[in-house]
Amino acid sequence: MNALALIEKKRDGGHLEPSELESLVRGYHAGEVPDYQMAAFLMAVFWRGLDRRETSALTRAMLESGDRLRLDDLGVPRIDKHSTGGVGDKVSIVLAPLIATLGVAIPMMSGRGLGHTGGTLDKLDAIPGFRTDLSLARARAQLESLGCVLIGQTAEIAPVDRRTYPLRSATGTVESIPLIASSIMSKKLSEGLTGLVLDVKRGSGAFLPELERGLALARAMIELGADHGCPTVALLTAMDRPLGRACGNALEVEESVLALRGEGPEDLMVVTYALGAEMLLLAGVVRTRDEAHQRMREAIASGRAAERFRAIVEAQGGNPGIVDDPATLPQAPAQRVHRASRAGVVQRVEPRAVGRGVTALGGNRVTMEDRIDPAVGFVITVRPGDRVSRGEPLATIHARDHQGLELGERALARAIEIGDALHEPPLPLVSHRVTAAGVEELTAADGG
Amino acid sequence: MNALALIEKKRDGGHLEPSELESLVRGYHAGEVPDYQMAAFLMAVFWRGLDRRETSALTRAMLESGDRLRLDDLGVPRIDKHSTGGVGDKVSIVLAPLIATLGVAIPMMSGRGLGHTGGTLDKLDAIPGFRTDLSLARARAQLESLGCVLIGQTAEIAPVDRRTYPLRSATGTVESIPLIASSIMSKKLSEGLTGLVLDVKRGSGAFLPELERGLALARAMIELGADHGCPTVALLTAMDRPLGRACGNALEVEESVLALRGEGPEDLMVVTYALGAEMLLLAGVVRTRDEAHQRMREAIASGRAAERFRAIVEAQGGNPGIVDDPATLPQAPAQRVHRASRAGVVQRVEPRAVGRGVTALGGNRVTMEDRIDPAVGFVITVRPGDRVSRGEPLATIHARDHQGLELGERALARAIEIGDALHEPPLPLVSHRVTAAGVEELTAADGG
Repeated sequence: MNALALIEKKRDGGHLEPSELESLVRGYHAGEVPDYQMAAFLMAVFWRGLDRRETSALTRAMLESGDRLRLDDLGVPRIDKHSTGGVGDKVSIVLAPLIATLGVAIPMMSGRGLGHTGGTLDKLDAIPGFRTDLSLARARAQLESLGCVLIGQTAEIAPVDRRTYPLRSATGTVESIPLIASSIMSKKLSEGLTGLVLDVKRGSGAFLPELERGLALARAMIELGADHGCPTVALLTAMDRPLGRACGNALEVEESVLALRGEGPEDLMVVTYALGAEMLLLAGVVRTRDEAHQRMREAIASGRAAERFRAIVEAQGGNPGIVDDPATLPQAPAQRVHRASRAGVVQRVEPRAVGRGVTALGGNRVTMEDRIDPAVGFVITVRPGDRVSRGEPLATIHARDHQGLELGERALARAIEIGDALHEPPLPLVSHRVTAAGVEELTAADGG
Repeated sequence: MNALALIEKKRDGGHLEPSELESLVRGYHAGEVPDYQMAAFLMAVFWRGLDRRETSALTRAMLESGDRLRLDDLGVPRIDKHSTGGVGDKVSIVLAPLIATLGVAIPMMSGRGLGHTGGTLDKLDAIPGFRTDLSLARARAQLESLGCVLIGQTAEIAPVDRRTYPLRSATGTVESIPLIASSIMSKKLSEGLTGLVLDVKRGSGAFLPELERGLALARAMIELGADHGCPTVALLTAMDRPLGRACGNALEVEESVLALRGEGPEDLMVVTYALGAEMLLLAGVVRTRDEAHQRMREAIASGRAAERFRAIVEAQGGNPGIVDDPATLPQAPAQRVHRASRAGVVQRVEPRAVGRGVTALGGNRVTMEDRIDPAVGFVITVRPGDRVSRGEPLATIHARDHQGLELGERALARAIEIGDALHEPPLPLVSHRVTAAGVEELTAADGG
């Protein structure tokens, strides 16, 4: 394996053969290719890109570097949902038990958060006793019994991605669409799925804020799904403000429970139902979007969705009481209402500023070694366009102590802008649907 | 020091501040910046380039990472010559003692060869007993007594360049003009020079074969010289065929001795005198190029140049007898005359094929750890344009054994092309002169 020759070929704008990418990934996995050669290769890819054939070969090589779930004999469709990450995005926790009640298996493997967005695993860790480090055998058994398991990426899944991810963070090679797409898809394709729904965020709080970049990422992942026999659909959803009201790990679990009980905030339900409908359509258990919405509403109204979440929490060692009484979740000792400093119209609720506020309170990670405080965060009750009077409550701050409350006040004062009128309308909650056939721009009716 | 931010800035086409480059180099030197971050940075530089201010700051930081010769009180001009490397290029060994006889100090710090070109240090190692690892104090003393010292780059000179050079080789970031220029100049500027002459090779055997790239490298190094108070001049010289007749370490020392005695091949003398004239003009010890040529010819004809080399060899522990009787140099046990397979005109003597032939015989390094055989190589007596008859001697092969002779035959058969007529004239030996004022194209008269 001549890593140098492959680096030079990509550096000069050449196209690598699948066998070349496979030998590079294998050499790296075996320790024959050092980190510095991989770093130079990643920067050359950042510069020159990868075409579809290369991205596909890289993804396959990363996938094949590790284990995967074998679920062919499960006898039911297996669908997962993946989000590129946003502030207040607790959709997975609502969607997984909900869709599992409708005859679809959900082998959901999630990640931890880094930076201004939280990760589903961190949210689940807020549930006392909940374990996400199940073996693949136990995960499989729970899929059979409950149709859903919520776990973390094990060391055996795409181990090369586990090593390249921190390397990319340290070398300025994260925001490369083929590298993002192959990283996400090498993990998702290991789940033995029959279909995958992607929630690609757009707007100021998204990983790739620009619409065009979000669409390009969606297309790249859909192509990878098609190349590996996993039909994939993407929705582009709004991340120019937080999703729902709660931002912070335990607070988001509480809001998820409310949503499963039929008391979720409207924006969260719109996005959850839109993604859920795509999952049900991909699984072939409904024929129309209307039918999908009707069945999801019934599953919530009947209590079956909340009951399934209760069973999953219990099966994974967590305290199922949190579903009946969210007050059993970790509570922050200090709370304070944040009020409007002037009358006017809420212009923006800037998600990055909110996310950084959660980080300041200790509720997000700055480095992968950080421990996080599950109880802290914000519940923000206003959104862009709301008219407020001076002194009106905008949010509640949940903090560890007085200093946290002060940090929270400052973060929210930056995040929530109040002006005389709304200058820019917020982004539509669900704006585009991307499939192998192309991009469809959605109307408000589609998203509702 | 946030290496990631600097990598990202360069990756996005930004310009780095001198203080940023300085902190990157310091962080790397101190072990705070790992090789993989430096590798990503180097690839970003390969892609985006460095402007003059950046290249200058990088060079200064690499220079300041180590020691340098302090020669201000030596009382004579200090001039060095550096070549970008070619096959059969033994000019340094002729030029250093020759110019030292004319009142100029030559603190010549050379490198080892890697790949198809040899290094001056390897050639000097062919002299029995010769030491190139002198301390800076001893080097200084010899400069005072003999006006010339021939040493290797010590561990204290530009240590960051010593680490980045193999890293660049392993990561496909060698052929970047600002990186080449800063690497060469960080070493040369440590020699405490009052002037520097660069021999930038062009043609198929050169490191950068294209004229435009050679000129760009010359300009970058001249700018660095100007920025650091070291007036620098470059000549572009031909490397579309080997220089002189001998290719191989001991064989080249022998040819150098012949040249110092006035018996050198014409092409070697043309290039040596052209570079020497620039050195003498920069030193201010002559007023015209004609005067320079006259004084160099006298130094050789009088025997003073050869005598100075003898003294240098003796002072550095080598056997001075090699100057009187080159047969005391290591001799290859097997020799064979290589003959023309057909009648015709020599069309090309391809330097890379010759250099690879020397490598096949064991006379060049493939990796830095290789030991080399000083005795092996070729003496090629024909050049492009020569008419030859079938069976006529073209070269002598000097090898360790019969297998070496066979490898040598095959290499020369590939390297020396014989056709019906000369299709392309060889490059002029000395084609361009580059100074801070601009580029001057030379006529045959200038080069002679």
